[in-house]
Amino acid sequence: MQRYFVDEIKAETAVITGDNFHHITRVMRMKLEDEVYLVTPDERTAVAAISELGEDFVRLNVISWLEASSELPVEITIASGLPKGDKLELITQKGTELGAKHFLSFPAKRSISKWDGKKAKKKTERLEKIAMEAAEQSHRSFIPDFEHLDTFAALLEKSAAYDYVVVAYEESAKEGETAALATLFGTMEKDQSVLAIFGPEGGFDAEEIAKLEAHHALKVGLGPRILRTETAPFYFLAAASYAFELAKNG
Amino acid sequence: MQRYFVDEIKAETAVITGDNFHHITRVMRMKLEDEVYLVTPDERTAVAAISELGEDFVRLNVISWLEASSELPVEITIASGLPKGDKLELITQKGTELGAKHFLSFPAKRSISKWDGKKAKKKTERLEKIAMEAAEQSHRSFIPDFEHLDTFAALLEKSAAYDYVVVAYEESAKEGETAALATLFGTMEKDQSVLAIFGPEGGFDAEEIAKLEAHHALKVGLGPRILRTETAPFYFLAAASYAFELAKNG
Repeated sequence: MQRYFVDEIKAETAVITGDNFHHITRVMRMKLEDEVYLVTPDERTAVAAISELGEDFVRLNVISWLEASSELPVEITIASGLPKGDKLELITQKGTELGAKHFLSFPAKRSISKWDGKKAKKKTERLEKIAMEAAEQSHRSFIPDFEHLDTFAALLEKSAAYDYVVVAYEESAKEGETAALATLFGTMEKDQSVLAIFGPEGGFDAEEIAKLEAHHALKVGLGPRILRTETAPFYFLAAASYAFELAKNG
Repeated sequence: MQRYFVDEIKAETAVITGDNFHHITRVMRMKLEDEVYLVTPDERTAVAAISELGEDFVRLNVISWLEASSELPVEITIASGLPKGDKLELITQKGTELGAKHFLSFPAKRSISKWDGKKAKKKTERLEKIAMEAAEQSHRSFIPDFEHLDTFAALLEKSAAYDYVVVAYEESAKEGETAALATLFGTMEKDQSVLAIFGPEGGFDAEEIAKLEAHHALKVGLGPRILRTETAPFYFLAAASYAFELAKNG
């Protein structure tokens, strides 16, 4: 469907003249009751139908307003056990495109990387810059933030603030666990929050998993293939988008 | 446990030579009775133990066959309009982890990169190596292949061989189209094939979209955020895994 930017929609009515009038009538050869998208200066989008074709204007009536938001209806925080190299940059860039709201990192037992205070500050600044650029590029209306937690205990403490806490667990994938993520997405409601926790290369050890479970974290499998530490958050976010933004209409 | 692709397992016995022989004996320094996973060309996976360490071969005996497949129940081919830099490496590595069966690339109108015959050969070899390593790492029982098509027309011709053809279309995302992908996944049956086509940076132009549609390609939106050319295939594959491997049980 065609899309036209208009200066205003008043009393659910818009009038189009000039080039767009020409485009609608001559190029598209539209007729009465044909539908288009109208976009207002405040970035709201309406579906509208042609109600009058004048000599030099087209009048349209709004049929419905589209949900203008490009934000996921649920609030997802991605927490990564410090991975090697520059993987956090990839997680932050792609995770922002895919709709994450916040990013956390923390030292896990099997983390090879170590961040002291100075390094954490520099890295955080760089990752927030990456998130801002990715937010602009992907048409987000929210810029995700990034925070490094000094300890695993700080992550456990922080987890209490979320409606749901999940940990991506490789053994779940190997054991053929398939229902937990779909059950979670079936249970979550609009505006609820979930903290999704991912291990570093090599995953979590049994003690870390036990502590997370003691803090109400639900183990979820992300399909039967073993995903790298930076790929698992992409899967989680894309599956959430599919479940909450696409499949509900399917 | 290490994982090796073998040409055949005959009478519950396999013989490994060449690079994998080197990997088993020199890199992993395995000994008699050490166990590995063996994957056959028909995608079955066995647990096998080393029964003989020769000068230039290792003989292994099957202990048990694994039941579960780690392959997506539908066959997804990812076709990318040549993107910039080394993005095809990321698409191939992560796409393999996420379950793609085949990869194609082709020159799109807005592709900046150009591949001549010699470059295409070298790149293809490199990308197939990346796919093999990612397949082993993610416990795939199938190694995806990579093929470069010289022309857009070759892509159109090839599309006829698939049960479904879709093109990720940015305008669909902007227009708030949400149902097409869920409808597709609701329609596809086990073992059916889909060719999923992605534009380069800047996307497809209207003429390319028209040609694709004339070849029965369905335009699909991948949520309301604009994804980079390398992120869109990850979304498509993760959503397919969620729809076919997790949500069906939800």
